[in-house]
Order: sequence, then structure tokens, then C-alpha cells
Amino acid sequence: MGGVVVERDIDDLPKNPANYTALTPLGFLERAALVHPTRKSLIHGSVAYTWHQTYRRCRQLASALTKCGATFGSTVAVIAPNTPAMYEAHFGVPMSGAVLNAVNIRLNAQTIAFLLGHSQSAVIMVDQEFYTLAEEALQIIANKSKNQFKPPILVVIADESCDPKSLQYALGRGAIEYENFLETGDGEFAWKAPEDEWHSIALGYTSGTTASPKGVVLHHRGAYLMALSNIVVWGMNEGAVYLWTLPMFHCNGWCFPWTLAALCGTSICLRQVTAKGVYSAIANLGVTHFCAAPVVLNTIVNVPKEETILPLPRVVHVMTAGAAPPPSVLSAMSERGFKVAHTYGLSETYGPSTICAWKPEWDSLPPEARARMNARQGVRYVALEGLDVVNTQNMTPVPNDGKTVGEIVFRGNAVMKGYLKNPKANEEAFANGWFHSGDLGVKHPDGYIEIKDRSKDIIISGGENISSVEVENILYQHPAIFEVSVVARPDERWGESPCAFVTLKPGVDTSNQTRLAEDIMKFSRSRMPAYWVPKSVVFGPLPKTATGKIQKHVLRTKAKEMGPVKKSRL
Amino acid sequence: MGGVVVERDIDDLPKNPANYTALTPLGFLERAALVHPTRKSLIHGSVAYTWHQTYRRCRQLASALTKCGATFGSTVAVIAPNTPAMYEAHFGVPMSGAVLNAVNIRLNAQTIAFLLGHSQSAVIMVDQEFYTLAEEALQIIANKSKNQFKPPILVVIADESCDPKSLQYALGRGAIEYENFLETGDGEFAWKAPEDEWHSIALGYTSGTTASPKGVVLHHRGAYLMALSNIVVWGMNEGAVYLWTLPMFHCNGWCFPWTLAALCGTSICLRQVTAKGVYSAIANLGVTHFCAAPVVLNTIVNVPKEETILPLPRVVHVMTAGAAPPPSVLSAMSERGFKVAHTYGLSETYGPSTICAWKPEWDSLPPEARARMNARQGVRYVALEGLDVVNTQNMTPVPNDGKTVGEIVFRGNAVMKGYLKNPKANEEAFANGWFHSGDLGVKHPDGYIEIKDRSKDIIISGGENISSVEVENILYQHPAIFEVSVVARPDERWGESPCAFVTLKPGVDTSNQTRLAEDIMKFSRSRMPAYWVPKSVVFGPLPKTATGKIQKHVLRTKAKEMGPVKKSRL
Repeated sequence: MGGVVVERDIDDLPKNPANYTALTPLGFLERAALVHPTRKSLIHGSVAYTWHQTYRRCRQLASALTKCGATFGSTVAVIAPNTPAMYEAHFGVPMSGAVLNAVNIRLNAQTIAFLLGHSQSAVIMVDQEFYTLAEEALQIIANKSKNQFKPPILVVIADESCDPKSLQYALGRGAIEYENFLETGDGEFAWKAPEDEWHSIALGYTSGTTASPKGVVLHHRGAYLMALSNIVVWGMNEGAVYLWTLPMFHCNGWCFPWTLAALCGTSICLRQVTAKGVYSAIANLGVTHFCAAPVVLNTIVNVPKEETILPLPRVVHVMTAGAAPPPSVLSAMSERGFKVAHTYGLSETYGPSTICAWKPEWDSLPPEARARMNARQGVRYVALEGLDVVNTQNMTPVPNDGKTVGEIVFRGNAVMKGYLKNPKANEEAFANGWFHSGDLGVKHPDGYIEIKDRSKDIIISGGENISSVEVENILYQHPAIFEVSVVARPDERWGESPCAFVTLKPGVDTSNQTRLAEDIMKFSRSRMPAYWVPKSVVFGPLPKTATGKIQKHVLRTKAKEMGPVKKSRL
Repeated sequence: MGGVVVERDIDDLPKNPANYTALTPLGFLERAALVHPTRKSLIHGSVAYTWHQTYRRCRQLASALTKCGATFGSTVAVIAPNTPAMYEAHFGVPMSGAVLNAVNIRLNAQTIAFLLGHSQSAVIMVDQEFYTLAEEALQIIANKSKNQFKPPILVVIADESCDPKSLQYALGRGAIEYENFLETGDGEFAWKAPEDEWHSIALGYTSGTTASPKGVVLHHRGAYLMALSNIVVWGMNEGAVYLWTLPMFHCNGWCFPWTLAALCGTSICLRQVTAKGVYSAIANLGVTHFCAAPVVLNTIVNVPKEETILPLPRVVHVMTAGAAPPPSVLSAMSERGFKVAHTYGLSETYGPSTICAWKPEWDSLPPEARARMNARQGVRYVALEGLDVVNTQNMTPVPNDGKTVGEIVFRGNAVMKGYLKNPKANEEAFANGWFHSGDLGVKHPDGYIEIKDRSKDIIISGGENISSVEVENILYQHPAIFEVSVVARPDERWGESPCAFVTLKPGVDTSNQTRLAEDIMKFSRSRMPAYWVPKSVVFGPLPKTATGKIQKHVLRTKAKEMGPVKKSRL
């Protein structure tokens, strides 16, 4: 046999301007405007834009921001619900070279003050409804920093569906209105493509389930790859009509602003998410796709029939993530004709980066078994190169037995650049060459992963781990329960025991809560190991984050304040 | 208004093993094997593999090659039609670190000798039918290089549909059979992902329409991006069933081996492309997509009805490129229920990198106008960042007037790394920051480009440019013409004049060729400017490349040999 020649020439061909371009999702917009200039890009009530207009408006925004000094290394904040300005910011801000900081509108002034100070946002675009909130946050910063405070430029976004008074107020305070701000920019502006695809495109703060917000920085490369990956894993087609139920301030709407441009699709804005609003957009605007947290799905399946338009006029594809959806909700959605893709991810992974990829062989399973299969978090996205569940002690993968619990870890292009100005958090997050999610899960024999709990949500009772998610999944099958969250409550005998916080379905007789609680415990005893059965049941509304995630840390505090479960009760 | 803070911290977050992975299409295979291990990956006659098996076999191949010394910088050649081994080579070869050199099986021994010598391929995988061809080519190299010749390792690929004698011959000559070669490899081999996505993945030689083959080098990054781009622009869904009519040795089958893995789809191999074979695969194997040069489409629409299975059992998506398809062929395809996506590109752009993206408003046009719209080369792929038509003198874009002819130029991630060991050709190809296609075209008012001709195919008659493609498109409407190619013939009066080489449809009375030629000229006179009308019409088969492209340079030589058109004839 002959020897192998190693031919170095074959790799000795350098990059040049003709054969290398930094990846960026911004180019999708230029392409959409070329290919489908007259197709609708955005619809918001009576306002509608075409792709030609959206491209022009985004360049105007980039130009106007550039005139204010925005450039590579600066940050522009947006505080707004899902309106056209919010969509435009996803292109216009990075087209100026700046980084987009989309702020959760449900945070309080104190937290927003922390975010704006930490990100040093130089321009703030704020929806008229949230103007006073922004002002209050800025006042907090000003009070703290005294003379050193450079007030940022405030741009107020008018929305005809809001009370005109809030707009008048903002204008009276010297804010410039968004449309007027755009007018200061050039619609033919030669926007700045990043020279390096590692350049940052967005900054988003983790919120809600943990106490101190961390600034997650994402880059152009990742945004480009995840925008395309959404298309590949969800089987989206060119010209999709997408309903904005998921807030764009949450992980940049899971990269869908950029996906929609790549598809030359149409975005339907929804300022307030209600089941009626969702059904009406499906009926009247041709919606084919939307994303939502499980809690939104719960609302959609639980409204009275007269608020629905069932049967659906077409298959509507729903992507859900943000919390493990109870199988019962998945099953109810699919009964109503929605096709649910279950995904999972974190702010740190550009939103969803795993999907419970559907297998045709599941079609023939009974509905409940189907929902159980689909309730798993699944397999890696195309743009995520590594996903595993590992023993946290030695980083070895757990066996594919569906039982051994380990930490879910991620690796690849769908993982964030890092946390802003937080070396310690970065070191922890990226230890041993993996991104550590803090979520605990198992790997099934078919290689699909399933979350068992956030590490901090595990209840340890008498030395045994209890997955709060598994207890919740069973409780969701109880006919009176609308929503439920299970946390650890101190327990004199067992250290901790499960405590269930419950919201009841409309129409449930709530006059005898003790009997209801007993009924729920009885229901539990017949369906789960004795030590899983909640020893305490509390009724009332559940505290939630802006994206509808239940704030377990609030409930944990509440459970703690209730004091330990007494030994005598056993 | 306040000043803008430039916050360098926001870009000061380095790459690390958790958040950066070199792009490579090889990871798609690992994912397909995880997500759909039991789904069919490849079907070839009675042979079928699952994704689990394909992943194993590709790792075996990579391992076996590694044992032979293949590594980063070496080249492995494959000389084979569309069989499973050819598909496996697209993963197994780069998984060893080596670069895949897929050789056109219709080349002669002389040219193959040049290619193998130039690429210094150290291992050659050759289908049993082409074993003697490879041997002949190696003999030519041996004769030239005398004692310095290191014979490469020969692996012969057995195919049960071939004459067993050719396999016996190869084995007798000491070649190792492919399945036995795989057996020497480890199915759990830890394959080599490239550390740098700029690393080369494939080498393919331009052929046919030009005289001296150039080695086009492609990289992992481009292959990854184009594989996904195929999905996005063609609207392909997960689990597509793809028929291999397009040879994989042609621009790596336009990146579709990698696309199919990303989609966890199924490849149907077709050793010999016949209309009957295509229709039968559609009827029996669930084919949803295939790619083919226009000449193959011409065959598909021109077979007798009994060789078809019309009406089609489902919409079948066809991607065509490789030459400008005559509108009449597009229109005939769509009448038969095929949905034709018209694309355009070169070996240097990973195959197609523009697409005539369909606009819904074209649906209401009359069939011919629709086909005319779709006959244009269109707009850039998602993974191609720049496409333009420029004045070759000063590189300025031509106006969007559908008339001004310029050179079509490309820029971005879909452009090759360069030509192997050919600095002069690289300098010319990449001049002024664009890749120069050598194709001449126009830009229409809607921004879509349309090819008018290869620069060398333009006919210059009395100082006027004539597009041979436009003349051909009109001639294709003649009822007796099956195929036609128009080239320049020397002309005493006009310098050059159009000469048409024609193949007639089956059943056409060919007894009076002079009358037929006169009829074609008469037909032309009523439909095109006088100076476009072919002054010479020649009947007979057309010389073609392996991919069905008509070899115009052969016809040009022929036309030259016919001598100049005499003045007296006018």
C-alpha cells in the first residue's frame, strides 16, 4: 500500500473580501426588502408596514441613533411591549453598531434602574405607557450617582391604542417622539455590518427566578445561526405568519424577529396577550405560528368555548418553552388542533436550543402517552453542537436510563458570549468547557433529555429528592386545578416537605377550602409515592415573571414564612 | 441631550470551549443518528440503511482512512455514481480530517490522471464499473512520474447491479473491497471535527465548458451554511425524501448530502438517471424532492405517456440549475405537477447560490409569463451575502433596467476558498473584492438578475452582441426541436453569426433536413431580430458534460471547422 501525501496547499487559501463575510442576521432584512418589498412585514392594529418600509425605517433608526453617537460598544435600551418599534429596534439598533438591551416591562423601577445603570444604555426607547416607569428608574440612578449622571436620550414610542395623556406627559417632559426621531435619520443609511461576527448584538437580563439579574450578552454569529435553526427544527416555511404572543424583550423573542426576516414572513403584534386576542388573530390574520410559555397555553385551552373560534381554520404551530409544560396541557392543545413543538433553553442559549423532535412512531400512541413523550425537553437544535446530562461531581455523562439525575449542560454556537461585567459568574457558568444550566434532568434510552427540576427547586424530604415538576404534572390532572406550583416547606420531621400553591379553575366552588385541600391530597395519595404528597395546599393567585414563569423563589419565601410543618401533624 | 457611553466591556468576552464550535456539516449526521436512528437514511435498490447505520459506517470509513494515514491536509478521491458509498464519503472522508475529491465519472483517463496528480489523492475509492478507468489514469501518472510515483491505495466499491466480472478483475488486481475496507475501521471512531471552520472539506474540478480544469476548494463553514440555506430557500421540511438525479460528484451534489442529514431525510440513490427511473421512484418510494439540470427536465417532460405515472401522487419539488432552463421546459414541468425552483450558481459557489424566489403575485399570470418570470436567475441565497451585475470596466452596478448587460458577481460565505495551486486564477477570480462568474446578465426592475450568456458564449455579429441563450429560448418553442444550442460561427460579412445545433424530438420526420432547417429559420425570422436568426442549422446529438451541460466549446470548434459563412449566401 502506498503512503499518504499531506498537501498543505489545500488549506493555504486565505480569507478575502469576496469569500468571507461576518455572519449577521441583519442581512436577512436587506434580502427580505429585495425579494418581497410589497409583502406585509408587520401588522399592529390599523398600522401595517411592508418589507420595503421596514428596511427603510430600520435604516432611519440606525442613522438617527448614529447621529446621537451610538456606535460599536454602546448600548441602546428599549422598554416596550410587542409593537413595531420593538421589532424595528432588533435591526435598527445593531445596524448602528450598538447593542440592543430589551428591558422586561414588568420589572419595577428599582430593578430597571439597576439594569440601565449596569448596561450604561445611552439611548432609551420607551413605549408611552412605560414612560413614567423609565423616568422613575432614571431618577433613582440620578439620586445615586449625583453629579456624575449623564442623562440618556429618551425616545417615546406612541401607540394609538394607549391613553393619549401618557404621550402628552412624555412630550411635555422633553422626550422626542419615535416617528419624529426616525425622521432625523436617513432611510438610505449605509448601515454597519459587523466586521467580526463575534461582535455583540444584544444584551438581556435574566430575571424573575433568581434574585440578582445578570446581563446575558449575545453575538451576531449566534443570532444568525439560531434564527436559521428555528426554521430548520420547526419546519417553518417562507412567508410564515407569526403572532407575537412571546415578548420580544424575553431572549429577543427567541431570535424570531430575525427568523421572520429570513423567511420574509409577517409579524402580527399583540400588545396584550389574551386567549381572545390569540383566537381572533388566527381567525382574521392568517396566523400559522406562535410561541408561548406553557401558562399561556393553559389560558388558551381553559377559556369558555364562546371566546374561541374552534375548530381552527388551519393547523396552527405552537412552540412552547420557558417551563416544563404539564402533559395535560399539551394534550388539551393538540385536541384543539394546535401542533405543539416543545422546546427548552435559557436566556444564555438564545432562548430555546433543544426541541422534543417529533417521531412519526409516536402518532399511533394513545393521546396521553403522546403528550408524555412530547413533554420531554428532547434533543439539541441544529445550531447547538453539544447537549448532555452530566454527573456534577466529575462531569461524566449520566447513563441513558431515564432515571439517573444530573445537570443539563450545553456547548456550542447557541451558547452566549458571557455575562456582562461578571467574571465570577462567567467562570462558574463555563466551568469544564460546558455551559451549566443549573437544571437537573435525565437522559432517556432514546437519548432525549427530560428536566426533573431546577437544582434549587428540588425538594429534599427525609434525604430523598422529590422533583417538584413531577408532583406538579400529576396535580395538573386534578379537575379543579388551573395552575399549581410545588415548593419545599420546612418540615420538623423530614427537613422539607412539598407545599402546593394552587389556582382553581373558574367555576370551582371555593367555599370549603379545607375540603378542597383534602381532596387534592387524597387525589395525590392514589397517584404518587407517599413522601411526594403535598403536606400543605395553599389557594390563591401565583406570582409570575413577565414571561409568565411562576416565581418559585417568592413561593419558597412564603412557604418558609408559614413556618415548619409540625411533627404532630403526621 | 446626553452623551453616549462606549462600553468596551460588552465586546470583551472571549470565545471558550463552551460557547464556540467550528461550523461543520458533519455534526448533522451525529444529530440525525441520535434523533431518528431507525429512519431510513439511504435506499439503493435492495440495499437500505438507517441513520444509526450510516453514522456507524461513516465513522468506520473515517477510522479506516485514518489507519491509512489520511489526516488534515490529505485528499481522498472518489470515482463513483450516486451510490451509498458516495454519500458516505461526504461524511467519512472529512471525518478523518481529509478533503473529499469527488471525481466526475464521465471524464476520460487522461483528465482523471491530471486531477489525481494535481490533487495528490492518496486513497481512491472507485466504483467497480470505473475500476479500469482509474487504473488507466494511474498508469498515465506512473508513466510520467517514473520512479517517484507512490501508488495510492485503491478501494473498489462493489454494486450488485453491476457485472460481477469488473469486481473480480479489481480484486484480482489487489484492490480492497469497500465493505472489507470499512471492516478495518471502528464504528465508534472519535471523528475529527475541524478546529477551524475554514478548514477544507471538498475539492472539485471545474470541467466541461472550459478546457483546463481548476480545483475548487470548499470549506466546512461554507458547506454548513449552504446545507442549511438549501432548506430555507427551498422550504424543505424535516424528513424529506430526496431522489439523487444530480450527481454527487458535481459540486458535492449542491451540498444536498449534508442538507439531507440536517433534515434527517431519506436519500434515494439512482445509479442511472432515466425518466422511467425518476417516475418510478416518485411512485414507489415517496420522493418529495430532486435536483436536475434543465436537460434532465427536458427528458422528463418529453417521454411517452406510458413511461410516466402522471398525474403525480403528490407535489414533487424540483430544483434546477446548471444552465438557463428554457421557459418552455419550465412551463411543461409545471403542467405535469412538478413545482420547479429555478436556481443558479457555479462550482465556485457551492452549486446554486441564487434562486428565482417565487412571488405569490405570479400565480395569476398566464402560464407562459409565469415560466418567463421563473426562468430568471433571481436573488441571492440566504447564505450568499452579495450578488450583483456590474460593469466590468469600473465595477459599478448596472441599472435595474432589464437591459444593460454586465458581469454577474458574487460575494460572501457561499464563495469558494479558492482554486488549488493556482494563484493567477485566484487573483482574477477575486479581483476587486468580488468573485467573477464570467456570466453576463441583467438586473430587472424588481432586482432579480437574469443571465444573458457566458461571456465567451456571446455572439458578436456586425458589432452587435447576440445572447445565444435568448436565441435558444425562442428556438425551444419550435415544435420539432428537442434540444438546441447556439454558438458563433465565423462569418465573412458579419464577423460571427449564430449557428444552431439541433436535436429533434422522437417521431419527427428527418428525411428532408434542408426543409427542416429552412422551417426553423422561417420560424426564427417571425420571432426575433433578423441578425439573431441562425444562418446555419446542424442536426445531430449534442456533446455534453457529465452533468448534462451542453459543451459549447466543442460546438464552437465544430462551427469553426465548418469554415466561415460566405458573403454570397446573403
